[in-house]
Amino acid sequence: MTFRLEMKVRDYECDLQGIVNNGVYFNYLEHARHEFLLEKGIDFAALTAQGIHLVVVRSELDYRQSLTSGDRFAIEVQVERISRVKFGFRQQVIRLSDNQVVLHGLVIGVALNPQGRPCVLPALETLLEG
Amino acid sequence: MTFRLEMKVRDYECDLQGIVNNGVYFNYLEHARHEFLLEKGIDFAALTAQGIHLVVVRSELDYRQSLTSGDRFAIEVQVERISRVKFGFRQQVIRLSDNQVVLHGLVIGVALNPQGRPCVLPALETLLEG
Amino acid sequence: MTFRLEMKVRDYECDLQGIVNNGVYFNYLEHARHEFLLEKGIDFAALTAQGIHLVVVRSELDYRQSLTSGDRFAIEVQVERISRVKFGFRQQVIRLSDNQVVLHGLVIGVALNPQGRPCVLPALETLLEG
Amino acid sequence: MTFRLEMKVRDYECDLQGIVNNGVYFNYLEHARHEFLLEKGIDFAALTAQGIHLVVVRSELDYRQSLTSGDRFAIEVQVERISRVKFGFRQQVIRLSDNQVVLHGLVIGVALNPQGRPCVLPALETLLEG
Repeated sequence: MTFRLEMKVRDYECDLQGIVNNGVYFNYLEHARHEFLLEKGIDFAALTAQGIHLVVVRSELDYRQSLTSGDRFAIEVQVERISRVKFGFRQQVIRLSDNQVVLHGLVIGVALNPQGRPCVLPALETLLEG
Repeated sequence: MTFRLEMKVRDYECDLQGIVNNGVYFNYLEHARHEFLLEKGIDFAALTAQGIHLVVVRSELDYRQSLTSGDRFAIEVQVERISRVKFGFRQQVIRLSDNQVVLHGLVIGVALNPQGRPCVLPALETLLEG
Repeated sequence: MTFRLEMKVRDYECDLQGIVNNGVYFNYLEHARHEFLLEKGIDFAALTAQGIHLVVVRSELDYRQSLTSGDRFAIEVQVERISRVKFGFRQQVIRLSDNQVVLHGLVIGVALNPQGRPCVLPALETLLEG
Repeated sequence: MTFRLEMKVRDYECDLQGIVNNGVYFNYLEHARHEFLLEKGIDFAALTAQGIHLVVVRSELDYRQSLTSGDRFAIEVQVERISRVKFGFRQQVIRLSDNQVVLHGLVIGVALNPQGRPCVLPALETLLEG
């Protein structure tokens, strides 16, 4: 199952090269992951308030194209298991005007319990059931 | 005429108080102004590429409430003339769940020509015609 | 007494006009206020953890010049009482290369107790004594 | 040769988990790379103005610890050749209070000429000479 979220570049996200700054893609990907989780009933902010922190342990991003002012794009998210406690989010940023893949990446996360230890979160397990 | 744009808080926009950081509202307001201008045929990025810079010279913001994770909100924009070359954008951020005004502000801008001098931009004049 | 903090523009803070984005000045001003408070023994993050939220209720900023890539600047902070519970921070951003005032502003804040009500915070009172 | 830049967390860089948001590390790493380049006589903004864009094509980041409000840290940068036109920047974020590695990563970049093609930039070659 692929989750998909459509967004539009905001001018303040562009840097002096006139294109979306590299760091901003990480924000886009995070927002798409959180919306994906929310759709599955997993609320990042509510978990945080309970002392459960979903954290990123590794990211690999390949930048293929650039987004610029006015561009509309979609972010696609798929999830896969990396280990007993690690989840991998395969994410793509696709420019809508020409359907080109602008960026694709793998973001690996774990849930930390209130003691700061990686834990199995039953809610996350359901992400893998499709 | 009131322009209106609906948006949703992204988790990375919240700070350690758990609410949208004060500086982020300025980003929201800028994005709403640029979308408003675009609807009127005025493209901020295209003007920049031509050497015409739309710049803010003053902002007055009143923070009434806070937005937090998951909140949906609207930004309303109205324009008024401040002087021959200055335009005032009256903007409100309205939380959709309870219709409360979260922030209202006045952002005053001018157009600078390629020599860096304030100038009258015919396209901006049309904003005032309603 | 004037608090002063020196900083340098980071390239990702510049937007497609090639200058520091207007919203970033809010970040600069906030950082300078927090460093000023810290020097006075008031730790924003520690207060937040105790349920005391220091929040901005109004800001007035005048943009006079622009900062750009590589610029070094100082932020000056002075505090004044606005009312029994409101504090005003007069802040200036000064470019070091030519000592020009780039921006000056007034940021008004209050302390909210864990019930969300404005309160008198003894630690803040000491800001006005020095 | 290792380039080193010391910085301090700013409160607005922390998110609702109370720690520096993952996306902000991209900003830190970019700023350190640009300061490193500048020390070597390579000015990112000046190159951009000449139509030469230094762009990131891949990043791999491993998040080991978190930075939080008040933390001081160093960013170390080392450069290596990846291919004829690709440069790799090995970067570490080190917390100063306990000398722990918070994050390490590899950021791969290329220079694009005004036609958007990867090119050999003599100034970059000198980075490898130690």
